[in-house]
Amino acid sequence: MKFLIIGGDAAGMSAASRAKRNQPEMNVTVLEETMDVSYSACGMPYNIADPDRDINDLVVRQAQVFREKQGIDLKTGCRAEAIDPDVKTVQAEDHTGQKQEFSYDSLLIATGASPVMPDMPGIDQKGVLPLKRLSDGRSIKDYLAGNRTESAILVGMGYIGLEMAEALSLRGIHVTGVTRGFMRNYDSSIAQVVQQTLSQHHVDLYRDQKVERIEKRGSSLAVVCNDQELGANMVLMGLGVAPNSRIAADAGIALGPKQAISVSRQMQTSNPFIYSAGDCADAYHVVTGQKTWVPLALLANRGGWAAADNICGKPVEVQGIAGSAVFKTFELEVARTGLSASEAEAAGFEPASVTIDARSRAHAHPGAESIRVHMVGDKKSGRLLGTQMVGKEGVAHRIKAPAVALHAQMGVEDFGQTDLPYAPPFSPVWDPLLTAANQLMKKL
Amino acid sequence: MKFLIIGGDAAGMSAASRAKRNQPEMNVTVLEETMDVSYSACGMPYNIADPDRDINDLVVRQAQVFREKQGIDLKTGCRAEAIDPDVKTVQAEDHTGQKQEFSYDSLLIATGASPVMPDMPGIDQKGVLPLKRLSDGRSIKDYLAGNRTESAILVGMGYIGLEMAEALSLRGIHVTGVTRGFMRNYDSSIAQVVQQTLSQHHVDLYRDQKVERIEKRGSSLAVVCNDQELGANMVLMGLGVAPNSRIAADAGIALGPKQAISVSRQMQTSNPFIYSAGDCADAYHVVTGQKTWVPLALLANRGGWAAADNICGKPVEVQGIAGSAVFKTFELEVARTGLSASEAEAAGFEPASVTIDARSRAHAHPGAESIRVHMVGDKKSGRLLGTQMVGKEGVAHRIKAPAVALHAQMGVEDFGQTDLPYAPPFSPVWDPLLTAANQLMKKL
Repeated sequence: MKFLIIGGDAAGMSAASRAKRNQPEMNVTVLEETMDVSYSACGMPYNIADPDRDINDLVVRQAQVFREKQGIDLKTGCRAEAIDPDVKTVQAEDHTGQKQEFSYDSLLIATGASPVMPDMPGIDQKGVLPLKRLSDGRSIKDYLAGNRTESAILVGMGYIGLEMAEALSLRGIHVTGVTRGFMRNYDSSIAQVVQQTLSQHHVDLYRDQKVERIEKRGSSLAVVCNDQELGANMVLMGLGVAPNSRIAADAGIALGPKQAISVSRQMQTSNPFIYSAGDCADAYHVVTGQKTWVPLALLANRGGWAAADNICGKPVEVQGIAGSAVFKTFELEVARTGLSASEAEAAGFEPASVTIDARSRAHAHPGAESIRVHMVGDKKSGRLLGTQMVGKEGVAHRIKAPAVALHAQMGVEDFGQTDLPYAPPFSPVWDPLLTAANQLMKKL
Repeated sequence: MKFLIIGGDAAGMSAASRAKRNQPEMNVTVLEETMDVSYSACGMPYNIADPDRDINDLVVRQAQVFREKQGIDLKTGCRAEAIDPDVKTVQAEDHTGQKQEFSYDSLLIATGASPVMPDMPGIDQKGVLPLKRLSDGRSIKDYLAGNRTESAILVGMGYIGLEMAEALSLRGIHVTGVTRGFMRNYDSSIAQVVQQTLSQHHVDLYRDQKVERIEKRGSSLAVVCNDQELGANMVLMGLGVAPNSRIAADAGIALGPKQAISVSRQMQTSNPFIYSAGDCADAYHVVTGQKTWVPLALLANRGGWAAADNICGKPVEVQGIAGSAVFKTFELEVARTGLSASEAEAAGFEPASVTIDARSRAHAHPGAESIRVHMVGDKKSGRLLGTQMVGKEGVAHRIKAPAVALHAQMGVEDFGQTDLPYAPPFSPVWDPLLTAANQLMKKL
């Protein structure tokens, strides 16, 4: 039994490790284009924030551990070029230019996603950098070490942009954000708090901007937008990512939303011998029941495990994602799960929503911070559809409660009846989530 | 319509306020034995920790606000003595000794619970104090202000005992805990971490002790146990509380577990005109479906609201409690929801459990603490039955996720599939809850 995996990041290495644990005698080969495997990509902003931390701290497991301790045939610097599903082979080229062919009984495509780098003039200037792969993190740290950087422009203000805003500010770099939309998946009541915090930390934010070109101006770079021209020493491109699905499409495999590789709950593609997992694959949304594409780490790990289990004859289904995400920017925790009101409407629900402000600790308990909860329910069914929160404490973990409720298709009324424990250092007697549910009930 | 309420704490005042909001013209009368209404009893340890904070900070709403702003006929210093359900009256005595009779159409018994004060020699010595009512908190603060207190003995180490251990230590008082069982509702793997922390903070803990008497010895008190004799300047009695149900039982109302007043999910007692809510009433456990008695603040507030809604003709059910609780002692957050393995066995389940240790933040993220999760599932049905956690961060809010899962009767496998969002400052990619569920699955 030959199990071949294209891509050695979260999904790929999770699958490889799981397969060897399930069946130690299995022949497991991984083709990884770069020299880096198994690293915490999400940790890069925090690493970049500290010039004294080695970027290699983010490597969770060294390639040689996979090879020597786990018996995985891990080929780094080896780029898969094409899949021939008829004869079950993959053509690849190693870093010396040598062509190689690998055969498989089961194949996992775990090619991940790549940063969107628009085809605009000046995008290849020195100092214009994306942040996705570990090598990108290295490039940014090297650039900061070697170039006096007083200011940076972040093009795009998604999660990574917002995390990088904090990271660069911590290094004393003035940050300017340039973006088309700002936190479009969040209610404006939540985005507003984030925007105020950015402003308090002297991060300038230009919204509704389209970047037209980047120009070199002496020792600095100019980002020319439709109605702004901004200067800085460094430009980070954070316009999101796109799934690396070309190799799958070329092999006749069906694609789903956003051109991600379409997979079943067993992580199987349209070809029964080919699986896909990670940022290149789509997923079911547990609230809508529809396919969606959300490239996040937990799903990649979970999908990798599930693909390996299914390939090893242990049937496993990944139920799907609930649209959960959390990030930290400066002192704020920001989190969401499920659908925003506009997403709910697009999915055919009849949403009602509330936004409430509460305290993070009990009446008279010292150190309380404010916490804002936005909650969305369905007028037709009474179901809870989504929750978003922002605050300085008690957000990142609290969001897990509505996330579980979404998996259980719970109603807002039932959610409002849950026994969420209370102690004065942690919440008011009525948890902010319960207060939001109680308020939302009045609109359903 | 006359709505009469016995007891002006959480349940009673919640009900009174809610009834007036539902029906502003309703005649709502509250009989409260003490002079204090609507205060945060749970906040007392934190208030006591700080000699400079006024104990009255804990009052959430003054009596006159209820009277003048909300139109509630609130009679403080008025003790209800007996209920005559045949003629629908309550006999009371005010603080001057004057007898009064109140008639009702609907009655709510919200008499709360009282600290267990065993009938042992020396229990009435000066310096031997319970902690339940606001007046107890006042007495403790007054005692500490007026008496040089270098050491204190806590008899009983429940939640309040563990919170007071921290509070008194913060005031430089050496604390000794004397207890029969220690955290009996928790798995030993969780209790062990708490015990280590107490020890690190120089809190001496004597387990398996029965206190026989308290003696005055010069300026200090001696607590004489079965096989220990311990001295201190102050003795706090924290042997738990018992429901104040005598007045209900005397009126022929049925009692439930632990002699708490038996109520339906509508908060109705065995007499259709009499409701009960708060620490004096029992509740359904959502995991076992059986009656139980858990005197905690959220249920009191929720029960008070529900009783008022039902009395006002808005049918509402309180689904029940999940056995959720959280407390802080020193730097630890400790939380539980659902059943422990032994509780599960007693309820007829076939429990399996795991304990896992995880990190509170991602690989290589600075500042990570350890977090321990104990999870219980049912071998017969695969259901999640309970979760307990301890750690320095990420416990108090994380417990809400399994609490919601218990309300939804979710299986361990389904819980392990939930989309709990990840970011490096807050958890590993696989949240400790998911790791615990994955491990527990192997035993089911």
